[in-house]
Amino acid sequence: MYTSSEAVEKLISRLSRLPGIGRKSAARLAFHILKLSPGEAGELADAIKEVKEKVGWCSICCNISETDPCPTCSDPRRRREIICVVEEAADAAAVDKAEGFNGLFHVLGGRLSPLDGIGPDDLRIKELLVRLTGVTEIIIATNPNVEGEATATYLSRLLKPMGIRVTRIARGLPVGADLEYADSATLARALEGRQEY
Amino acid sequence: MYTSSEAVEKLISRLSRLPGIGRKSAARLAFHILKLSPGEAGELADAIKEVKEKVGWCSICCNISETDPCPTCSDPRRRREIICVVEEAADAAAVDKAEGFNGLFHVLGGRLSPLDGIGPDDLRIKELLVRLTGVTEIIIATNPNVEGEATATYLSRLLKPMGIRVTRIARGLPVGADLEYADSATLARALEGRQEY
Repeated sequence: MYTSSEAVEKLISRLSRLPGIGRKSAARLAFHILKLSPGEAGELADAIKEVKEKVGWCSICCNISETDPCPTCSDPRRRREIICVVEEAADAAAVDKAEGFNGLFHVLGGRLSPLDGIGPDDLRIKELLVRLTGVTEIIIATNPNVEGEATATYLSRLLKPMGIRVTRIARGLPVGADLEYADSATLARALEGRQEY
Repeated sequence: MYTSSEAVEKLISRLSRLPGIGRKSAARLAFHILKLSPGEAGELADAIKEVKEKVGWCSICCNISETDPCPTCSDPRRRREIICVVEEAADAAAVDKAEGFNGLFHVLGGRLSPLDGIGPDDLRIKELLVRLTGVTEIIIATNPNVEGEATATYLSRLLKPMGIRVTRIARGLPVGADLEYADSATLARALEGRQEY
């Protein structure tokens, strides 16, 4: 889909750089933005700029935050002896929303991935190590895929000798799933992680 | 997914108003935008503002354009006696890209949809009627769905009595499709529109 307007083409090209948005979706979004009122389009543009201006990183947990330390790290009601380690800020938000956790977070900023040249020095592991005083448990909540598991294994080998309890979130069947259609790797994990009634 | 940053929440809410983007996709985009350099994020925001400032409408064909008349309407190499009527600017861009058409366009700005309260007066039909001098053929290229067909029927009944040849783009099997998996409405159309070798 090629339009005759340079400004539209530029917007389509910028939008199609976003993850999960190909040229066709980008064109659809661009034509939608064209139909917005100038006020609504301005609000969207301003929200993008504002997020870059206001949002930085918490120097303790490396999560995104408008303040330093972030609201979670400075919340006195949170248990400071448990840290949940996640790959990205979005993962911390997801765990927080699940409401089963009342400790602190640590955002690695990625996962170990030798093929992409990402090693331990590229993740915020040093920042985690300086936080360990008084910590009794580290819950590793990296993604349950190859890189996430490798990152979890690396962290557990690093932290266990320090006498800290290191746990991994459970892998098994998602709630609402159908046994018949589950993949065998997930089923094997679900059997392995079975619990007593 | 709820974040602790108001600016991020605002961006997610603005992004999730775009078509085809739910809250989860919006959050994914927002976290990606957070990772962009300030320059890249600024370029995206500016592209959105620029498109609203620069792009307007061609007063002849009602297509989006940075100039009035648009480049297509003012192109002397285009055949002025054939007009292809489409619903939206994106449709005109798609037809133009297919390269089988060298006439002019007319963008209705929608389709007849009584359930949504959209009648003939809400479409740019008057603007089409004043363009008919010297026109020998109107190709109706509205979408091949219920509303698009209704719009096409309405237009053909309006235009035919004026002595203009009114045609409709062919409906049939898409190129590369599999007969076995085609829906029966499409197959019926393909049989109906069969052509001599």
